[in-house]
Amino acid sequence: MWQQREVTLPASRRGFHLITDYIERALDELAPVSVGLLHLQLLHTSASLTINENADPSVRRDMEQHFSVMVPENQPYYEHIYEGSDDMPAHIKASMLGSSLTIPIKNGLLYLGTWQGVYLGEHRDHAGARRLLMTLHGES
Amino acid sequence: MWQQREVTLPASRRGFHLITDYIERALDELAPVSVGLLHLQLLHTSASLTINENADPSVRRDMEQHFSVMVPENQPYYEHIYEGSDDMPAHIKASMLGSSLTIPIKNGLLYLGTWQGVYLGEHRDHAGARRLLMTLHGES
Amino acid sequence: MWQQREVTLPASRRGFHLITDYIERALDELAPVSVGLLHLQLLHTSASLTINENADPSVRRDMEQHFSVMVPENQPYYEHIYEGSDDMPAHIKASMLGSSLTIPIKNGLLYLGTWQGVYLGEHRDHAGARRLLMTLHGES
Repeated sequence: MWQQREVTLPASRRGFHLITDYIERALDELAPVSVGLLHLQLLHTSASLTINENADPSVRRDMEQHFSVMVPENQPYYEHIYEGSDDMPAHIKASMLGSSLTIPIKNGLLYLGTWQGVYLGEHRDHAGARRLLMTLHGES
Repeated sequence: MWQQREVTLPASRRGFHLITDYIERALDELAPVSVGLLHLQLLHTSASLTINENADPSVRRDMEQHFSVMVPENQPYYEHIYEGSDDMPAHIKASMLGSSLTIPIKNGLLYLGTWQGVYLGEHRDHAGARRLLMTLHGES
Repeated sequence: MWQQREVTLPASRRGFHLITDYIERALDELAPVSVGLLHLQLLHTSASLTINENADPSVRRDMEQHFSVMVPENQPYYEHIYEGSDDMPAHIKASMLGSSLTIPIKNGLLYLGTWQGVYLGEHRDHAGARRLLMTLHGES
């Protein structure tokens, strides 16, 4: 059984944001699978998806700080600068972290560790809403 | 329905290369699926696959520049140096970016964002052709 | 056909470890598929999975060295410091490398390149055993 649906993540400020609840609510609107995989594809090149700690917000803040140190703005060798100083670093971070995730499903629910949550990495300073494609397959 | 086929990417110079057209042509040779997922596995440890901006070539050049700053050659702590100064950085970049991708399929086509394309990251200075395994599954 | 099973990776010291044999043995305990995909999800936020060179152990040592240079401990901007100086870098490395992999299967075996192996990245100094969820689907 295959199900595919595009959803919209509301605009977020630059940084990492826990979107597990949002994904779970969108999953609830699909027919449940007992065992399967949920594939998430962000349809953008300056934001990312990753799995990390779902408890302390300081983890998300430290990730934002450190990714912005590893991938600084205004490097002298950047040629792609006409979309703003945050744009090229956003592309690089999107590839370092990835724009898709595949998450195991059991009994209709995400099967993740106790401390795992789904993050949206928003790498632009003034981004709009983000399109996310969900593809669910499994056995009912 | 499952289909699996190995294809060959011609040798590329070091850097990031848009291979969306190549993937689409290889996909056209498989039986089409209406909804599904295409898994791509590069069978090498010094090249990578990633999704990023499909328009301006300067994005690919800036990515090459910045990954080579984050992962420099000739670090004093590298022990694995007998395959050339570009080899160990190539292994590290391959793991930072990843050697596989899973791409959603709809009506026989890649379902990606308007500005998204598939990149090969070639991290060696003088690489040969690269083997790529395609695994397609979905419903027809 | 879907199969899902949780297995336990024994505690490892900090660094990168080849776990291909372990994955192959666990795969042998599932019903074989002729063509399919094996999804691996680490149920933790301070360790990672990646595919890299399966031969020379110096590659794993150089990766550990270089990731610890790219993501140093005790950065002045880290707020999340109460779980030890290795904790926040471990979270960042887990997202850079990823906590899941999807590996192609052919005739019941992992379909990887000659030089490819599966690595566990253990990013904590004193971690315990790690839970790994295997989800296998394919045709028999």
